[in-house]
Amino acid sequence: MTTTATTTTTATTTTNSDTRVTVLGLGAMGSAIARNFLDRGYRTTVWNRTASKSTPLVEAGATAAATAAEAVAASPLVVVCLLDSTALDEVLASVEPAVKGKVLVNVTSGSAGQARANERWAGERGAEYLDGKIMGDPPYVGTDRVMFPFSGSRSAFEAHESTLRELGSVAYHGEDAGLAAVEFMAQVALAYELLIGYLHVLKLVQAEGVDVVEFTERFAGSLPAYPALLGSMGQAVKSGAYAPDLGSLDVQAALMDDLIAHRESLGVDTMRMREVKELMDRRIVDGHGDQGFSSLFEVLGGAAAQV
Amino acid sequence: MTTTATTTTTATTTTNSDTRVTVLGLGAMGSAIARNFLDRGYRTTVWNRTASKSTPLVEAGATAAATAAEAVAASPLVVVCLLDSTALDEVLASVEPAVKGKVLVNVTSGSAGQARANERWAGERGAEYLDGKIMGDPPYVGTDRVMFPFSGSRSAFEAHESTLRELGSVAYHGEDAGLAAVEFMAQVALAYELLIGYLHVLKLVQAEGVDVVEFTERFAGSLPAYPALLGSMGQAVKSGAYAPDLGSLDVQAALMDDLIAHRESLGVDTMRMREVKELMDRRIVDGHGDQGFSSLFEVLGGAAAQV
Repeated sequence: MTTTATTTTTATTTTNSDTRVTVLGLGAMGSAIARNFLDRGYRTTVWNRTASKSTPLVEAGATAAATAAEAVAASPLVVVCLLDSTALDEVLASVEPAVKGKVLVNVTSGSAGQARANERWAGERGAEYLDGKIMGDPPYVGTDRVMFPFSGSRSAFEAHESTLRELGSVAYHGEDAGLAAVEFMAQVALAYELLIGYLHVLKLVQAEGVDVVEFTERFAGSLPAYPALLGSMGQAVKSGAYAPDLGSLDVQAALMDDLIAHRESLGVDTMRMREVKELMDRRIVDGHGDQGFSSLFEVLGGAAAQV
Repeated sequence: MTTTATTTTTATTTTNSDTRVTVLGLGAMGSAIARNFLDRGYRTTVWNRTASKSTPLVEAGATAAATAAEAVAASPLVVVCLLDSTALDEVLASVEPAVKGKVLVNVTSGSAGQARANERWAGERGAEYLDGKIMGDPPYVGTDRVMFPFSGSRSAFEAHESTLRELGSVAYHGEDAGLAAVEFMAQVALAYELLIGYLHVLKLVQAEGVDVVEFTERFAGSLPAYPALLGSMGQAVKSGAYAPDLGSLDVQAALMDDLIAHRESLGVDTMRMREVKELMDRRIVDGHGDQGFSSLFEVLGGAAAQV
């Protein structure tokens, strides 16, 4: 894999010569996608295993195809939004000959490895493949509150970019079809890391008699300070030059003992803070106590850097 | 303990009738505090165990006291900024009779329990006590980049608020002297939770061939979406009404399996994600799979809610 630049633009600068689009899968998200295309004047063909799901869309102007293969045949651009990769594999097998010459845009949940396998499957059958992931909720499709990372065929993305931008905030992450899934997994994982840490801290402040809503407002007020700190840490990780951000590890390790003792005194679980302390201690033992927090990157394990 | 409202204002609205101030402890932070007072025209008395530390401040106009007790006697307001609570206890013992009628503002590192013990000590000797914590670095004292949570004597805070505001961004957290330490511990712990999670995710994205600096920029760009989410979670924790934020736990638990599998496939440690999954599973087993992420608060352990 190679590093690929991400392209994000907000203005639509091209128009489609062909406004036909097909949507396979009409769950909450697939229905929202189809309705969004309809609302914006696209000639929309839909298909769902349970046909009744298409009724409200047909009433809004969509064409319901009798089979998935028929739906694929109806449009050059086919958006696939199914429950999971098992459902995806079944539907793809059923449309196999029809995909030749089509652009498949698959936004079904799945891993980077599954995206790469889908891309090979499509390529072997003469189709172009784009993998997409969805960060946001169905009611907000068509607004900036839903983000769609895409990866895979650059030519397919460029040819259909204006159509895809109808769906929300769109970014292209590179030709490796797995990169949209990587972006999704990374952003979601980081959201969970932040939010589980936040809940632990709420437990602590509530035990101390502090109002959790007021504390939340103060923490939210501190968030604008993070981009600069994160930016310098990202640069440190990339370069391997670990300045003493947040102070040296020698000093931070003592603070970590205080944080652990505080949680213990309140009966709040200390596991997450102990992990940080153990990582700091490993760096200090290795002679890097003068470096900063970002240097813990070196002892997190994981595959060797490829960038 | 009771819930206390936090007061934060940025404008200085009162003036001191007395501009005498004493600073005990002239490490990097104590020296920065003393210099800031000097720069703003305060009649500043300083003391440090190693007297040579006072030389540059005396050259800038400060008065060096021969003993800590003499320094305390010189001003109605005494800011104490020592290395740790051991040093604090020694210095306080040496100034014991001189503190009567003074306001002690202690910004030395220490726990909430230590702050409460200091307050009792001061009260028994006829002094008013304010505990403060410092979030920021010495070069930025006197700017909004350094935050000082204070707690303890409300009358002392109000009488000296304009002087304290010379130091940076100041907030009063309530009459329980431990609350400044609680705020400090909570904000710092949450910073570490966010930052260690960020480093784990960087390991993952780098292993996938994604540029860590570009990913950091994208994550930083997503931070403005967090206050609304955190705000709704704080309200859910406070009320105990856990709407399915981020989807229901039943759905999120499946996503968590994907995140764990992804980390495993790259050799990145999975402990932190496994903790989240285990908490979700406990809620689901207990019959709360329809609730949201914030409901994990109920299974984090910790002292009973007092709010």
